[in-house]
Amino acid sequence: MGSVAYDGIETPHGRADRILGGAATYIALAASYFVPVKIVAVVGDDFAPEDTELLAGKGIDLEGLERVPGKTFFWAGRYSADMNDRETLRTDLNVFADFQPKLPETYRSAPYLLLGNIQPALQHGVRAQMNGLRLAGGDTMNYWIRDYRAELLETLRDWDFLLINDSEARMLSGEYNLRRAAAKIQEMGPRTLVVKRGEYGAILFTNGCHFIAPGYLLEDVFDPTGAGDCFAGGFIGYLAGANARHGAVDQNDWRRAVIYGSVMGSFCCEQFGVDRFRKLTRDEVEKRYREFKACTDF
Amino acid sequence: MGSVAYDGIETPHGRADRILGGAATYIALAASYFVPVKIVAVVGDDFAPEDTELLAGKGIDLEGLERVPGKTFFWAGRYSADMNDRETLRTDLNVFADFQPKLPETYRSAPYLLLGNIQPALQHGVRAQMNGLRLAGGDTMNYWIRDYRAELLETLRDWDFLLINDSEARMLSGEYNLRRAAAKIQEMGPRTLVVKRGEYGAILFTNGCHFIAPGYLLEDVFDPTGAGDCFAGGFIGYLAGANARHGAVDQNDWRRAVIYGSVMGSFCCEQFGVDRFRKLTRDEVEKRYREFKACTDF
Repeated sequence: MGSVAYDGIETPHGRADRILGGAATYIALAASYFVPVKIVAVVGDDFAPEDTELLAGKGIDLEGLERVPGKTFFWAGRYSADMNDRETLRTDLNVFADFQPKLPETYRSAPYLLLGNIQPALQHGVRAQMNGLRLAGGDTMNYWIRDYRAELLETLRDWDFLLINDSEARMLSGEYNLRRAAAKIQEMGPRTLVVKRGEYGAILFTNGCHFIAPGYLLEDVFDPTGAGDCFAGGFIGYLAGANARHGAVDQNDWRRAVIYGSVMGSFCCEQFGVDRFRKLTRDEVEKRYREFKACTDF
Repeated sequence: MGSVAYDGIETPHGRADRILGGAATYIALAASYFVPVKIVAVVGDDFAPEDTELLAGKGIDLEGLERVPGKTFFWAGRYSADMNDRETLRTDLNVFADFQPKLPETYRSAPYLLLGNIQPALQHGVRAQMNGLRLAGGDTMNYWIRDYRAELLETLRDWDFLLINDSEARMLSGEYNLRRAAAKIQEMGPRTLVVKRGEYGAILFTNGCHFIAPGYLLEDVFDPTGAGDCFAGGFIGYLAGANARHGAVDQNDWRRAVIYGSVMGSFCCEQFGVDRFRKLTRDEVEKRYREFKACTDF
């Protein structure tokens, strides 16, 4: 669940005025390499048939992709020369402004839920509509942490895991040191926390210990848009698959989920927008996972 | 080889007006946990007997620690609140200004050489005095890369390995992407390159492949001064030990050397100046290495 959007993107490598984007889009695309995916989002009547086809072509269930009169959510941003910073140039919520997600009946018993970055009350409302969850969690951002804190804390209480970046973990916990920040956040609800550190990888905190994963070292970063959401998609996708295979998620599964998350995030950066997923194969995913292993083993 | 100094340090955790420091000090202390060490540096006649005793107590050979009339090199700096930046408050070269390292006869046949960050011509001169090197390398910094480029390139040509941080690797190579930066630097001479990324770990480039090591996640960072030099000391110390044990250095040795470097750097940050090394035991080093393994394995 999250946004499906059109993005305008400028990076040092080029620009695109209006391409498919949005958290739910990236999450669903990345997760679709691991398990069947159902998407919950809203688009306007300008949403292009070829974009619907891309999602449907990955086997993504679109029953929960509401289509309403008006324009699809539009975001535009420009990246700095080193691509570590980006500036938002425009945010037109359009049909997203009145989004009140209502789950199709066939969605309610799904066992795994990934809540993309969106207003905490909406995340809460979606979770409340589900009745057989084995694993639920999601993402949030500085805006909700700062201005919707009470609502966010209420929402987090029911999550099994939270994925946020390091500066957000510090903001949410009030602790600079990440080990102490993680301990505080875990007391808020999510027993598993993944702190994302961009190109430097991620740290997983779960079951009283932590796992430090470095970032995959890309030859070229073309466009980082969506990399964090692809991380989330690979993460929940792998966990769902593992849980389905052996009925539980153990320490090794959490760790591998972080690596698969990184793998999917790394592919995302290799081309503009969602382009890398048009031709990406499951074999390439496995190959990069093994490469990750080979580059970190000692 | 490098500086032995007195440091004045301010961190958010406290301050020290005049404590033992200097690259060669940290390198020698860290390496002494792995192999016998000989130090090459210069101090003034103000160098305190208890500081000599600390080094001697670790079995460090002090024949090459020249003592001349005048004051020992003094550096003072202040760290930012998050300790990711530091400002130099004072640099008094003192006796270091005229340092022309001459190796004692007993040093010349040593098989391993670590050249701390110092003027490239001096590094070159020390290397030229040695006659049985199996492995030589060292550190440099932005100042030499920018203002002494020709001299530095001449010096690097003879090194087996170079340890520098990511911004310096970018400056030296003129490439932003670290994979491309590494390829260019390896063409300058050092077939092995370690790119240090502070708290985020390090990347090793050697034999046509790379190894990405995340940083150790400290509970408290008290004072980062010397952490990079302790990395270098642990790195060369482990390599020297491995080479002595099996007559060569293979891919696994290089990788483990990076981890032992990180281990020694992490201990360094736990107390002010060199204090952590007063009581650190080899068993603690091994324990942290195993912890590193446990926190990164998947």
